[in-house]
Amino acid sequence: MTPRQHLCANRDAARDRFVDFLRIPSVGAQKAHDADTLQAAHWVADHLRQSGFTDIQLLCRDGGHPCVVARTSAAQVANPDAPRVLFYGHYDVQPADPLNLWASPPFEPVIRDGIVYARGASDDKGQVLCFLEALRAYHATGTQLPGPLTVCIEGEEESKGRTLPALVKTEKDLLKADICLISDTALWDGATGPEPSITYALRGLAYFEVRLRTLKRDLHSGIYGGTILNPANLLVKVLSRLVDDQGHITIPHFYDDVPAISPAQKKSWEDLNFNDGAFVGEVGGIRHGEAGFSTLERNWARPTCDINGITSGYQGEGAKTVIPAVAGAKVSFRLPARMNPKKVGAQFRAWVEAEVKAVAPAGVQIEILNHGDADPVAVSTDSPFIAASCRALEGVFNRKPVLMGCGASIPIAADFKQELGLDTLFVGFGLNSDNIHSPNECFGLDRLAQGCDTHVEILAEIGKL
Amino acid sequence: MTPRQHLCANRDAARDRFVDFLRIPSVGAQKAHDADTLQAAHWVADHLRQSGFTDIQLLCRDGGHPCVVARTSAAQVANPDAPRVLFYGHYDVQPADPLNLWASPPFEPVIRDGIVYARGASDDKGQVLCFLEALRAYHATGTQLPGPLTVCIEGEEESKGRTLPALVKTEKDLLKADICLISDTALWDGATGPEPSITYALRGLAYFEVRLRTLKRDLHSGIYGGTILNPANLLVKVLSRLVDDQGHITIPHFYDDVPAISPAQKKSWEDLNFNDGAFVGEVGGIRHGEAGFSTLERNWARPTCDINGITSGYQGEGAKTVIPAVAGAKVSFRLPARMNPKKVGAQFRAWVEAEVKAVAPAGVQIEILNHGDADPVAVSTDSPFIAASCRALEGVFNRKPVLMGCGASIPIAADFKQELGLDTLFVGFGLNSDNIHSPNECFGLDRLAQGCDTHVEILAEIGKL
Repeated sequence: MTPRQHLCANRDAARDRFVDFLRIPSVGAQKAHDADTLQAAHWVADHLRQSGFTDIQLLCRDGGHPCVVARTSAAQVANPDAPRVLFYGHYDVQPADPLNLWASPPFEPVIRDGIVYARGASDDKGQVLCFLEALRAYHATGTQLPGPLTVCIEGEEESKGRTLPALVKTEKDLLKADICLISDTALWDGATGPEPSITYALRGLAYFEVRLRTLKRDLHSGIYGGTILNPANLLVKVLSRLVDDQGHITIPHFYDDVPAISPAQKKSWEDLNFNDGAFVGEVGGIRHGEAGFSTLERNWARPTCDINGITSGYQGEGAKTVIPAVAGAKVSFRLPARMNPKKVGAQFRAWVEAEVKAVAPAGVQIEILNHGDADPVAVSTDSPFIAASCRALEGVFNRKPVLMGCGASIPIAADFKQELGLDTLFVGFGLNSDNIHSPNECFGLDRLAQGCDTHVEILAEIGKL
Repeated sequence: MTPRQHLCANRDAARDRFVDFLRIPSVGAQKAHDADTLQAAHWVADHLRQSGFTDIQLLCRDGGHPCVVARTSAAQVANPDAPRVLFYGHYDVQPADPLNLWASPPFEPVIRDGIVYARGASDDKGQVLCFLEALRAYHATGTQLPGPLTVCIEGEEESKGRTLPALVKTEKDLLKADICLISDTALWDGATGPEPSITYALRGLAYFEVRLRTLKRDLHSGIYGGTILNPANLLVKVLSRLVDDQGHITIPHFYDDVPAISPAQKKSWEDLNFNDGAFVGEVGGIRHGEAGFSTLERNWARPTCDINGITSGYQGEGAKTVIPAVAGAKVSFRLPARMNPKKVGAQFRAWVEAEVKAVAPAGVQIEILNHGDADPVAVSTDSPFIAASCRALEGVFNRKPVLMGCGASIPIAADFKQELGLDTLFVGFGLNSDNIHSPNECFGLDRLAQGCDTHVEILAEIGKL
């Protein structure tokens, strides 16, 4: 029996293990779930042990959740000279609230119409399990793995912990490989339904908090209204100037490093016949963005600036007649290939200071915090690893995969590139309709099956390189 | 013994009653203090009874806190044909939080250097007590009150309750009078210290909440960033256009009803030698406002627009990469004489809708709530009641009172004008440094004495009209 045949004959057992994994409320960000999160780490380690791994470590740093790292033994591998794959995923999940918006409890998985509903179903337990089940199938059928492999499943992805970024710096020998493989992205959602895909570019991120203070304490807006600078009025004035009416970010030299979209790239994206009406309409949104670019171009190849949060003064019911003492906003930029979050940070700081000074030359206390940088990631589409993955996907889905970009960020991929020199294959099985980070997260059993099969084939194809 | 002599001989007893009144935590807005708030109403009623009043009612509407209304009997009054005075004040106080910023507990009054520190000391218990002690002094010395009087002390001023506004409509016979007298404003804080003053104009208020919704739920800012309209980005763009760089409100026809400042008025305000550096500096503020006007003019005679609160998206620690579904702001306008809050409301609604449509022609859900209107109040400075009050103040302070405006609003005064045809004498004894609505609220015993003496004289002067 081949691994593919084994998988095909044992879908129900895989589904049961999936449900079992989802029952563990491994909300890494919440202290109350520390024991659950550790349990999920052990669940992953046990699964690897059952698949023939003997070298399994749970690595911790600074009291964070452990990173499960397993390496193949010589006996497990058919061709020790094949490229070593580092598979990365995470067993922690987002917090489940708001609970009242869930149709069924987030940690009591329910299957409706072949779709499993539970927190973490798509992000990232379902996708991690696709890979783990592929390993199990190799082991169960007595088939050696085609090449050497390192599995790295962390528990701090959603809480932006420091464990893995630290390990990447200090455990280079343990983690070194030839190519990284990540399943934490989505299938291409085409006009005729989901299509196999490989993501070759992710945007970076630069995330800031701006706080402007003009007073020691909140004041009565009647007694002082009209005579002193109101920091909320100031903040909206400053932030409103960040993006012009054409959707261009106004910071000087902001676009200097943004690569032009080549005619070939433009053509290939047009050929995808992306239905942006459906993409936006599904979430009740209003199409909007930088003039002169399509929705896909805006999302995959152009920088953006979003206010992620804003806060000032009285926010309760009814009226309170105050001039706030302070006003703050979370502002983040998504950055396409070649943009540098550190450089963007310096530009943004200088710009905010200049804008504030233009309104009030002195006296405003400006605080700008950095809440996270991620470099953009771009992989050359003509690499042999991409070609190998394309063959694997085509073998499972019977159609050529789409090469796509992604507007989101996977910061660890930039760390792998910088510290270990690794490019990443992003081969994911999610859908935008999976409600990740939202109530009623879900993952289809059809995609669990496709994912398991694909990973068997990817390992086989890379083993031949 | 005259009432003034009696007051002078009994300052300590008045101070003790003041402390007693302040010990009652009559936070009208907080259910937990309902019993305390009622106790304060009875404290006022008891004080009036001890001062010879027999016709005292506690009037409630819709389960709100009672309004204490007392009317003089024939036997109490020397000249029944003199103008009837309606004295208005309130026994409820603002919530005391943030408690950690108080130097001593808010409801355990402490006297330091002749100043009493407690919640409500200035707003409005101290000022109400000035009047009540004047009545007590008349009674204690067997002196008849110069003219008929109605006392109306409510318990819902700080919580914007509906009891008194309802009574003003339904109990016109009970409340009718010839002139209203309110002590809930401040002394003029001149270059050489506080000076006696009469406030003859207060600004009105129009207070709104704007909510813009562009999505059903918060979305991932990577997956959707740059492709859909972000309501926080939209809100700051709209709000930033409300006031131009010269400090003018940009709503069309907004200034149509704003009276010009006459040269005589301008001159009289210049003569006050207002120290706006000190006014603003004391609170750590930054001088700012409409171009072409002085701080006093901006505060007393020009409309303003302040953002009192703003809220959207993620406001906790660190980063959350969301595009918010909705963004909202509390926005209020202060309105000088002749402006109409209802008209301003209609203008503001139309303006917000037009500004949103200019960015997104369709799809944005716009909600605009009204959280309160107050008409501006202006009293002719050549009324005989103002002249009588000037004589009274000059007699106590030995200097001519300042006729001043005020940037804040006392909405009930507009109700008294509209429903009962009453003009109001605003004769207050507060100071901007009294920290009303803030921690460490205070009121000086010197001002308690001056206030008591002044009210004895105001009643005497009006009794002669």
